[in-house]
Amino acid sequence: MSGRLYVIGTGPGNPAQTTPEALAAVADATEFFGYGPYLDRLTLRAGQIRHASDNREELDRAKAALQRAATGANVCVVSGGDPGVFAMAAAVCEAIDHGPEEWCAIDLVVVPGITAMLAVAARIGAPLGHDFCAISLSDNLKPWPIIEIRLRAVAEAGFVIALYNPISKARPWQLGAAFEILRAILPADTPVIFGRAAGRPDERMAVARLADAEASQADMATCVIIGSAETRVIARKGRADLVYTPRFIREDAK
Amino acid sequence: MSGRLYVIGTGPGNPAQTTPEALAAVADATEFFGYGPYLDRLTLRAGQIRHASDNREELDRAKAALQRAATGANVCVVSGGDPGVFAMAAAVCEAIDHGPEEWCAIDLVVVPGITAMLAVAARIGAPLGHDFCAISLSDNLKPWPIIEIRLRAVAEAGFVIALYNPISKARPWQLGAAFEILRAILPADTPVIFGRAAGRPDERMAVARLADAEASQADMATCVIIGSAETRVIARKGRADLVYTPRFIREDAK
Repeated sequence: MSGRLYVIGTGPGNPAQTTPEALAAVADATEFFGYGPYLDRLTLRAGQIRHASDNREELDRAKAALQRAATGANVCVVSGGDPGVFAMAAAVCEAIDHGPEEWCAIDLVVVPGITAMLAVAARIGAPLGHDFCAISLSDNLKPWPIIEIRLRAVAEAGFVIALYNPISKARPWQLGAAFEILRAILPADTPVIFGRAAGRPDERMAVARLADAEASQADMATCVIIGSAETRVIARKGRADLVYTPRFIREDAK
Repeated sequence: MSGRLYVIGTGPGNPAQTTPEALAAVADATEFFGYGPYLDRLTLRAGQIRHASDNREELDRAKAALQRAATGANVCVVSGGDPGVFAMAAAVCEAIDHGPEEWCAIDLVVVPGITAMLAVAARIGAPLGHDFCAISLSDNLKPWPIIEIRLRAVAEAGFVIALYNPISKARPWQLGAAFEILRAILPADTPVIFGRAAGRPDERMAVARLADAEASQADMATCVIIGSAETRVIARKGRADLVYTPRFIREDAK
């Protein structure tokens, strides 16, 4: 008799943004697999077991969790944000797809969470108020030329762009290269939002013009949102600027 | 002294997917503006006032809420899902942008929520596991030719596509036209997910091949997710199929 495998998202790190559904999954599981800092967000009982692993070992972590669930344990794989957005749910599905037949019998329950771009957008207004896309800027898992093609395609077609995994020590130049590509397509005044650790004590939100945006304004905890040509900034006396993308496009737009 | 204006998302309708942050906003507000069925999801105290309005009156609703907040009331504008995704946060920002100066002084707090595509994706596996986009198929607020351009751009560039507002009585043909456009670009076997009312008692999830997908499988409560050429289906004996998009793209992909 195989157990249940939860794949949960804790949201961006503010406990008030973790859903009751995710907390119920935590209460029901006895073993937890995840990147250490995400496991640190959980309050566990005595007897609940932590298996912390490095951020890069997603497929091995998924396999280890599936093996434990196959023996009958109720297991929880923990992502930050939403588990389905550049996170563990796809790694678990990949492991099932290429794993032993018995893993298909496991009761897999994916529990959604607030993903970073939604939390960042909420803190600054409504930059995702119209058509938008999410792109991982990591070229660990896909060739850089595909990322370039995608950036051009969505910028030319008028999407707002949320960039996940914008920069890391091992990937220092990609975000700057992305800005260069976008500067050739979008107006210089296009707002760029650097949303770091939204909702956490170390939150830092900044808005730059695309012409002035610098990769050094982002770190690994940052989600970068680049507006479309329609995106607007509202200056407010005594309050932070609001950034939003109108719900409508005029008939005379491109 | 102006009041506070919360713009909250309740999530897709399963109370276990509403965040504590959203519930705290509801507890703090005295007046509520929103589409009736979204207001019905709230448990209000005696003395908390409901202002229900039709789904199409977003800008008027935003203005009415801002007027009340400007007089000092703590007001809550209620969206389903996430308020920043094709919902009220952009309408409120538009109203502030074009409204009286005093509306800029209102303490605007946007509270994110689980948006439909995340809830649907979680119920079926991890279809949004790689780069993806969200497009509103409503041509009430933008010209149809722009929607066609965007669909072609993202399908050709390999994005998974989440379609919001896929169909309604007033917009019966747009989803079928979108499928026709995508059939000319994507493989016949590309999975199409019809995710209706995810997490609610009347939930209905279905997966079709793009070649066979029919607009009649969707209604107003459906979020449609169309895979990329990379998206895979895992058949499981005795369990529903899983649909996921791998985290990686091989070097030899287009």
